[in-house]
Amino acid sequence: MRVRELGEAALIAAFSEIYRSNAKVEIGIGDDGAVVASPYQREVITTDIATEGVHFNRQWSSAYDIGAKIAIANLADVYAMGATPHYLTVAIASSGAEEVSYLLDIARGIESVASAHGASVVGGDVVAADSLTIAITAIGGVITPALRSGVKVGDYVYLTRGTGRSLGGLLLLSRGLVDADSQEVKFFQRPEFHPEDLTEFGYENMAALMDVSDGLIADLGKIAEASKVCIDLDIDEGQLEYLRDFAKKLELLPLELFLRSGEEHSFIVAVRADLQSQVPKKWIKIGQAVAGRGSQEDSGEIITMRGSKLPFTEQVWHW
Amino acid sequence: MRVRELGEAALIAAFSEIYRSNAKVEIGIGDDGAVVASPYQREVITTDIATEGVHFNRQWSSAYDIGAKIAIANLADVYAMGATPHYLTVAIASSGAEEVSYLLDIARGIESVASAHGASVVGGDVVAADSLTIAITAIGGVITPALRSGVKVGDYVYLTRGTGRSLGGLLLLSRGLVDADSQEVKFFQRPEFHPEDLTEFGYENMAALMDVSDGLIADLGKIAEASKVCIDLDIDEGQLEYLRDFAKKLELLPLELFLRSGEEHSFIVAVRADLQSQVPKKWIKIGQAVAGRGSQEDSGEIITMRGSKLPFTEQVWHW
Repeated sequence: MRVRELGEAALIAAFSEIYRSNAKVEIGIGDDGAVVASPYQREVITTDIATEGVHFNRQWSSAYDIGAKIAIANLADVYAMGATPHYLTVAIASSGAEEVSYLLDIARGIESVASAHGASVVGGDVVAADSLTIAITAIGGVITPALRSGVKVGDYVYLTRGTGRSLGGLLLLSRGLVDADSQEVKFFQRPEFHPEDLTEFGYENMAALMDVSDGLIADLGKIAEASKVCIDLDIDEGQLEYLRDFAKKLELLPLELFLRSGEEHSFIVAVRADLQSQVPKKWIKIGQAVAGRGSQEDSGEIITMRGSKLPFTEQVWHW
Repeated sequence: MRVRELGEAALIAAFSEIYRSNAKVEIGIGDDGAVVASPYQREVITTDIATEGVHFNRQWSSAYDIGAKIAIANLADVYAMGATPHYLTVAIASSGAEEVSYLLDIARGIESVASAHGASVVGGDVVAADSLTIAITAIGGVITPALRSGVKVGDYVYLTRGTGRSLGGLLLLSRGLVDADSQEVKFFQRPEFHPEDLTEFGYENMAALMDVSDGLIADLGKIAEASKVCIDLDIDEGQLEYLRDFAKKLELLPLELFLRSGEEHSFIVAVRADLQSQVPKKWIKIGQAVAGRGSQEDSGEIITMRGSKLPFTEQVWHW
């Protein structure tokens, strides 16, 4: 059955079956708004909107993975503020021509990520539109926010997981080099997401924290700008072994995939030099903050590689 | 300048100038998420998504009015839960071909409504898409939620303001009977919004509360269903004098405009019989709850007019 045949009320009822509220939700889907308990005195609020053809492609990802990936992007922003996610709302604009099961699979993907991280989908909206668009807002509780602006000269910069596989998978698909069932595009379809790595180290030990959503060059640039430092990268080929097969098939350098890949949702963590011994072993040290032109808008000038100009800095239009 | 020429960072910076955060916002636009004070132990969360061609039309409304109207729809849901709005996020999907000033005027319209009601826009997202889509999430503090489900047989049903002018304006425009500068379409372009009428009466005195967003027939049906009552309307022509000119030009009955008009954002309030004397004089009594088939899905059968079948109940596809 198609969405426009089912109608709004029945669709919302079907969503309600998928989104299982937890005990902190007093009133969930079905009234003018949700009513929730608010146990923290400070909260983090963040919103993402994703649209078909720009942020996802039905040929390349299942509806379940599309939902999961958008939810991961959203929750990553909550964790990147040092917060714990509690509540999500999901607004969907749909042409009405989709199969109902397609929208429900998107909801199941969102719910799988939300529930794995202790969060509840408490409400949303469904409207008609030309193309499929999904907007998720997440609300979380926070004690001490982890910002982008705390990096000092001398701090070391770590990645909780090496980047590159998201862009690798996207390029393999878009160039028609593999099909959507290929193992190599699994990460692109649904990024691995391990925010628990952050609590292991402790938010209180972080000089700055951010998730990788637009690619390392762009995102490190935002940290450098907010902190008014230059981040000097020191990455050697040996650290990028896991990208060798991608790079070979795509005829790119592993470093380019590493620096440009977005929608990764690993985390950039800046750490004071004296706390390095406490950093989890699997994190990857990628550079150090040095004095520099941290207030320049050109991210190419505030991120360097062993003191020299960074490659691959020409702008890619994505926003 | 067009949006795609300006780029994301500069656009967000321009939005930040428009959305003036208040003191409860610790971290506003610019990090992974906003950090806000959460002074209430219970919150209301609500989301709306609006898309060009379905929910708004550039030929019929200014960008400022489009922004204001979406914000009103969103805040109306917060007030309709008995809550006070505190924070909003705004996610915009844009083709990139719009003038920057157009998106900024939308933001100014949103900000005008938010600030008039003590709420702050604390974050958002901007992405590329085929058509212009705007998703707003609002978060408010609430002490005792006002639900749809509290109506008992014998309660009276009031409207805080008579409905009909929104649909009247829309039909005048869509039939080409007036142009967008006409005084008659002002309400359609930007509904009058007076949630302060609710606090005057007091949320604690309400048996049920809801805003009129889909039209009286649909929205009264939701209250009747949630409360398991039938709502019997008693409306006479004299109450609908303000719709006479619309109805004449459109060759419709005033009652049809009254019952069908959505995006009104006046409020339906159910009141126990013994509290009627406290109801503000300008509210309009429209009916009374009687025993009935409140659990039926067909809203035509749970809303009656002086005991008889309601006219104008055939479904209109809008969702």
